[in-house]
Amino acid sequence: MKTIFNHRSIRQYQSKPIDQALLDKILEAGTRASTTGNMQLYSVVVTRNEEAKAKLAPLHFNQPMVKQAPVLLTVCADLNRFNSWCEFRNADAGYDNFLWILNAVVDASLFAQNICVAAESEGLGICYLGTALYNAPEISEALELPKGVIPLTAITVGYPDQNPPLTDRLPLSAVVYNEKYEANTEERINSLYAEKEALDSSRKFVAENAKDNLAQVFTDIRYKKADNLHFSAKLLDFLKAQGFQF
Amino acid sequence: MKTIFNHRSIRQYQSKPIDQALLDKILEAGTRASTTGNMQLYSVVVTRNEEAKAKLAPLHFNQPMVKQAPVLLTVCADLNRFNSWCEFRNADAGYDNFLWILNAVVDASLFAQNICVAAESEGLGICYLGTALYNAPEISEALELPKGVIPLTAITVGYPDQNPPLTDRLPLSAVVYNEKYEANTEERINSLYAEKEALDSSRKFVAENAKDNLAQVFTDIRYKKADNLHFSAKLLDFLKAQGFQF
Repeated sequence: MKTIFNHRSIRQYQSKPIDQALLDKILEAGTRASTTGNMQLYSVVVTRNEEAKAKLAPLHFNQPMVKQAPVLLTVCADLNRFNSWCEFRNADAGYDNFLWILNAVVDASLFAQNICVAAESEGLGICYLGTALYNAPEISEALELPKGVIPLTAITVGYPDQNPPLTDRLPLSAVVYNEKYEANTEERINSLYAEKEALDSSRKFVAENAKDNLAQVFTDIRYKKADNLHFSAKLLDFLKAQGFQF
Repeated sequence: MKTIFNHRSIRQYQSKPIDQALLDKILEAGTRASTTGNMQLYSVVVTRNEEAKAKLAPLHFNQPMVKQAPVLLTVCADLNRFNSWCEFRNADAGYDNFLWILNAVVDASLFAQNICVAAESEGLGICYLGTALYNAPEISEALELPKGVIPLTAITVGYPDQNPPLTDRLPLSAVVYNEKYEANTEERINSLYAEKEALDSSRKFVAENAKDNLAQVFTDIRYKKADNLHFSAKLLDFLKAQGFQF
């Protein structure tokens, strides 16, 4: 519990390497998470090699921690192993569809989060890189991922060389509903986002980008509609190339 | 770490209720997980009401723990709140596409897993119900989920009234690759699945269902191709109805 409440994304690491036995223990902790039918529809590629990290860095938009962290984990939704098993056992697999992409994405995410909590409980720091989905085809090529495998998220791991403050969260009432969902009226939204919008860091973002408000920093600067549409279409094409049918 | 390695799915609960302050603390632990751009693209509907649980039970194929557990959590991928914020701030949101479904699904899954680890660290037991995706439209109607919200997984929570053994996992080498993915050749698959196939429980499944092997129990009994295709198409239709574009 203390580990979970102490989580912050670490973007600066000591040069100290991670002992292999410790890393194995952390990855094994990942595998203790529940999965659909205990099918374990995930895998992880561990990158320690400097050259390999340098090759992956631009695919994560050159976020510096990719090269700086001693270990980069690329967590994948993986139907390939299960489908291969079925194939070699003369069993008629039907897992190349949208439902099973989502099942595998959930499996892989629970695995990833267990890894992160386990790593942090051992004094390591982590940072998720959501960029894996943006350049999934290129990452897939670099790591030689076969059909049925989707690079879902990447995680940098290492001993922290910074201690950033906790980041803000919306009030709990923003995300927790009792019995029924409650419509997000303008009044409710104003109330839920008031604190976030009033933060110094938020005001600074708005001012620096010459926007009217924080929401526009997201829509016009950080995650623009045109980019979203481009990367979404690219991702769908990749999934079709990986053998999934829609 | 100990909590993570001690995880087993709990399907039988004591009648003892969960204190509201404890549940709030556990849900808050959920919110400490990382999310895409700190956008928190998730929500959770808490079901405690007996009638409401009885209504949801058939949508989870009458798994008995839905009615028996004191709390059922329906964890949702949620773009509605963020989109509503953008709308009320005159910001041009572009998050109604496939990329952002996956971003929200990952956000919601990390949130869910933090909740589960936190719950277990407080002596509670949990069980994931993957069935939420199968009957997403009906669950959505029961919980009054608006556009942009997807019921992703459900979790039963309560004090354990059983202590089942740990379930098996594939060897770590099945899911961990160093630097590059390694093709799942027949030799590799035989080696990775040997232990699982040799388990008494696996042999029993195969015998009971009069199948040749364990893989066929999955493909012919548990998760059949025809069912997968049906539920996958149903899920895609639901997502389109929820406002997502493919």
